[in-house]
Amino acid sequence: MAIPPPTRHAHPMRITEATDADWPAIWAFFQPITAAGETFTYPTDMDQGQARQGWLLPEPDHTVVALDEHGTVLGTAKMNRNHMGNADHIASASYMVDPAHRGRGVGRALCEYTLDWAHRSGCTAMQFNAVVATNTRAVGLYESLGFAVVGTLERGFRHPTQGHVGLHIMYRALDHAPARARR
Amino acid sequence: MAIPPPTRHAHPMRITEATDADWPAIWAFFQPITAAGETFTYPTDMDQGQARQGWLLPEPDHTVVALDEHGTVLGTAKMNRNHMGNADHIASASYMVDPAHRGRGVGRALCEYTLDWAHRSGCTAMQFNAVVATNTRAVGLYESLGFAVVGTLERGFRHPTQGHVGLHIMYRALDHAPARARR
Repeated sequence: MAIPPPTRHAHPMRITEATDADWPAIWAFFQPITAAGETFTYPTDMDQGQARQGWLLPEPDHTVVALDEHGTVLGTAKMNRNHMGNADHIASASYMVDPAHRGRGVGRALCEYTLDWAHRSGCTAMQFNAVVATNTRAVGLYESLGFAVVGTLERGFRHPTQGHVGLHIMYRALDHAPARARR
Repeated sequence: MAIPPPTRHAHPMRITEATDADWPAIWAFFQPITAAGETFTYPTDMDQGQARQGWLLPEPDHTVVALDEHGTVLGTAKMNRNHMGNADHIASASYMVDPAHRGRGVGRALCEYTLDWAHRSGCTAMQFNAVVATNTRAVGLYESLGFAVVGTLERGFRHPTQGHVGLHIMYRALDHAPARARR
């Protein structure tokens, strides 16, 4: 599967393991994004403890932040195995980008990082369980990185302003075009 | 969505909440089924504590057993919300039938029960996350109960004898044909 080369970022950006010290900066955009209820299947009234536990995953799962040259948190990603047993070669990941830093390729860089992590972890596929169909920015990004919508849960998401919309399941194999080879 | 009327069971069967006292009877078929690794995305070496915790769900989730007239456990089902937040109207369920009691409509009765539970719980859809494509008995049962394969994770499951096979995501709405009305 041929996929485009990594984006050249206009600004320096580094992706590193998220620590407890990063949490306040993550929560600053995590809270309004989840409260808006437009893009995640998380409780819209999620409290900070619940959010932190669900996002900062212990090993063997992994959570990172994307930082600019000043150490500002631009976005974050968590990554994990999506199934157990004989399906534990399927990874999953979630991304959140601070709206103040959109359009800088943060989401793309985080997505590339997670594909790489999944491949390094021995996974041969990546699945997103619930991509809100109206979140066309995310759907387009994932498609540009080799994902396909393999199915849609019709009326699977209660969008606060657009009513019942679809939830996409997106998927791509990693075995034939490991992200690692592209970095 | 028109679906067939409930099966007439050849033998009396009742479905009731699973208790700790039912666990040894569940484990007697749960263990060989999961160890075989052909139909569930569970660790094939799952120990009893892990299995029990994952199967006997606390409220508001729910776990039941199907019993014959002598109180013998024929099968079991667990049911839960499959997503949080603005997708928490989608339920999920899993079923396990003792191979010694196959062909008696136990799986169908359990599936009907879970559709009913989901509807009573305010859910308007049911999703199965990982139905092994080679498990044609289950796929056919679910289709007969109104589910459709909405997507397939190609090579999503390492079948112990058939190699990499697909994992189906199956889904049905509950709002137009509530299981409850049929009981």
